[in-house]
Amino acid sequence: MDKNSLQNEILNVLNKRWDEAPLIASVTNFVTAEFVANCQLAAGGRAAVVNMPDEAVSIAEICSAFYINLGTILPVYEKTIPAVAQTLAKSGKKWVLDPVAAGLGELRTKLLLELKEYKPSVIRGNPSEIIALAKIWELEQGDLPKACGVDSVAHVDEAKTAAVSLAKFTGGAVVVSGSADLITDGTIIVRSYGGSALMERVTGCGCALSGIVAFCLAFADPFTASVCAVNAFNHAGTEAEKKCSGTGSFKTAFLDQLYSLTADKIAYNHFETETV
Amino acid sequence: MDKNSLQNEILNVLNKRWDEAPLIASVTNFVTAEFVANCQLAAGGRAAVVNMPDEAVSIAEICSAFYINLGTILPVYEKTIPAVAQTLAKSGKKWVLDPVAAGLGELRTKLLLELKEYKPSVIRGNPSEIIALAKIWELEQGDLPKACGVDSVAHVDEAKTAAVSLAKFTGGAVVVSGSADLITDGTIIVRSYGGSALMERVTGCGCALSGIVAFCLAFADPFTASVCAVNAFNHAGTEAEKKCSGTGSFKTAFLDQLYSLTADKIAYNHFETETV
Amino acid sequence: MDKNSLQNEILNVLNKRWDEAPLIASVTNFVTAEFVANCQLAAGGRAAVVNMPDEAVSIAEICSAFYINLGTILPVYEKTIPAVAQTLAKSGKKWVLDPVAAGLGELRTKLLLELKEYKPSVIRGNPSEIIALAKIWELEQGDLPKACGVDSVAHVDEAKTAAVSLAKFTGGAVVVSGSADLITDGTIIVRSYGGSALMERVTGCGCALSGIVAFCLAFADPFTASVCAVNAFNHAGTEAEKKCSGTGSFKTAFLDQLYSLTADKIAYNHFETETV
Repeated sequence: MDKNSLQNEILNVLNKRWDEAPLIASVTNFVTAEFVANCQLAAGGRAAVVNMPDEAVSIAEICSAFYINLGTILPVYEKTIPAVAQTLAKSGKKWVLDPVAAGLGELRTKLLLELKEYKPSVIRGNPSEIIALAKIWELEQGDLPKACGVDSVAHVDEAKTAAVSLAKFTGGAVVVSGSADLITDGTIIVRSYGGSALMERVTGCGCALSGIVAFCLAFADPFTASVCAVNAFNHAGTEAEKKCSGTGSFKTAFLDQLYSLTADKIAYNHFETETV
Repeated sequence: MDKNSLQNEILNVLNKRWDEAPLIASVTNFVTAEFVANCQLAAGGRAAVVNMPDEAVSIAEICSAFYINLGTILPVYEKTIPAVAQTLAKSGKKWVLDPVAAGLGELRTKLLLELKEYKPSVIRGNPSEIIALAKIWELEQGDLPKACGVDSVAHVDEAKTAAVSLAKFTGGAVVVSGSADLITDGTIIVRSYGGSALMERVTGCGCALSGIVAFCLAFADPFTASVCAVNAFNHAGTEAEKKCSGTGSFKTAFLDQLYSLTADKIAYNHFETETV
Repeated sequence: MDKNSLQNEILNVLNKRWDEAPLIASVTNFVTAEFVANCQLAAGGRAAVVNMPDEAVSIAEICSAFYINLGTILPVYEKTIPAVAQTLAKSGKKWVLDPVAAGLGELRTKLLLELKEYKPSVIRGNPSEIIALAKIWELEQGDLPKACGVDSVAHVDEAKTAAVSLAKFTGGAVVVSGSADLITDGTIIVRSYGGSALMERVTGCGCALSGIVAFCLAFADPFTASVCAVNAFNHAGTEAEKKCSGTGSFKTAFLDQLYSLTADKIAYNHFETETV
């Protein structure tokens, strides 16, 4: 698929579905849950966050797409996350995995191991997280990257083969966040440009991107949804930076930009395609 | 009570008590807890959020009013919420129940069933939640509305009889949020106008309204407190929309408006009264 | 140490280390976690929040400084907080304790008792919390102050002897927040001026100050780090108040100010020194 075809596909899905308000359910961390929800609402979706196993399973059955984020995990997630992933896999409902801080702690690693069989539609992480997940799932060899909290110690291109391996394994898409973001379905690679250096100075921009991928899954296939979401974020970030005086006003302007997005802005944000 | 009497009562309570900073304690969800607290602080209160049973009971004894919100429930709330509700009922301290996502999950339904006997001073929800609660408490017949996460699938007027039933049962007030909000004490119905469509695009506006009702309970009876809070939100929403460029700046402007509210703005926000 | 020496020391540490982005790990409350992280990121750090015991211990080994905040405690913290404090003490890594609502609830008191032996590098609280902690640790005589949620019922000077006792006991520094903030290492007292009355109307300003102290611990000793953080907050608060129309825009402007801080602004914010 070349760049023009992808742009047309983006315009196609966005013009067709953008007016609906799909329900995106999440199990996610408490640091960024509000910002994630506000991004999803700004973009035109509805958001629901749950913790308990049975309610996660119930809402998985009625939502348009699901989002599992492994930041600030709590003991109850040991049951909740596998239960909801199993439900999603059984029903074929699309979902996003954000493997926050992959490699840190026993429960997180246990959960990531259990999630392997349920094959997320999209995986979104920073380079370190993508590399770590490929190793935890034994798709790549070698030791885990040194844990570094929620931040990456690797660059996007270092995670390219891990991203491709993960996408080939899941049959979905993988997004690697960085100064230029990489999106792949295992055969094509998209690099999306723009954004702002301030996005690393506002907590939750990565989590929120994953949340917007989940929103886009409500009306697009995993690869197209990922490109839509990344382009949307890069456009909004670029524009928000022009209007801000620091990280506080950047966050406010970023939400305003998400609210004002159009299909054109998303389709024509600067990106390039290449084959793997 | 006609409209003029109610306006006079609102002016009366607000002019008498607005300068104090009552402590409002909450057991509430982690998605919107910060926004709720910031609304309470903007309006002139103090806010404290707790999770553990014994500390909830302790703070229930010293706070001016309490707020129980059932979003993102955690296992520990199985003990915390009934314990604090029992304490509140024993001491006659006023409290607000926000039955977020009523009908979703076993623990939430169990908690709502247990809360029935403690009779919240005010119940605030969207139409689906109000209808679901009236059915869970067996004040209305029929199946629960189809769960829909935190959003409503019903309109305000569909929840009118449920709201009246709930208010008659508790002896307090019920608020149903919608494009025009409905408040009832079981005999009178107030419809409050204004607000902004953007309030559905910022997470937590419903939770925050409940939190402001709790703040108003510190100096007014349940029905007057509910009308004060809803009028305050509708005025602030209307004004904030004029000053914003999207959902990010709307939220900022909304908090600024809450901070700048006066008794007059609240009393003279557009509302109508009718008898049930 | 006189005022000029302290200003020179502040300029020295800030000019040397300000460009780095140290990782500050936290176990903290879910109401203010996002704001704390956004303050740390605005100031130039990186932030990670964890709940589980093993991941807290793991991240304690790789972070630059740690922050333990006792707001909205959850059952899992009974294991997490002592485990991480022990790790920090063993490795000599610096950390900040924010004894939110000290005296409220059994688990909080148990945790505070356990933390005594690990001697936090910096303790930051409001006057009531500082007095309560000194009594819980039996450094001061008398009954606990009446619990008052997260707000103080005492004034800064009433907490002066408690602060000095705590600092002498830990060998670190203590910060008492108020209209003029007090910082002491047990021998010197700094009073830092500025800030804004609006900081009490935005939830988490106290928590965030503690989080910025933790950030400053990455490049300064406990006493200097505390003065840096308090001066930074007072300068940012003063400037933000000039640019705002209420509490919503104050918070946004405050983050912008933190992002724009310079060593000079921090060193030359109005403060005074005195000996104990």
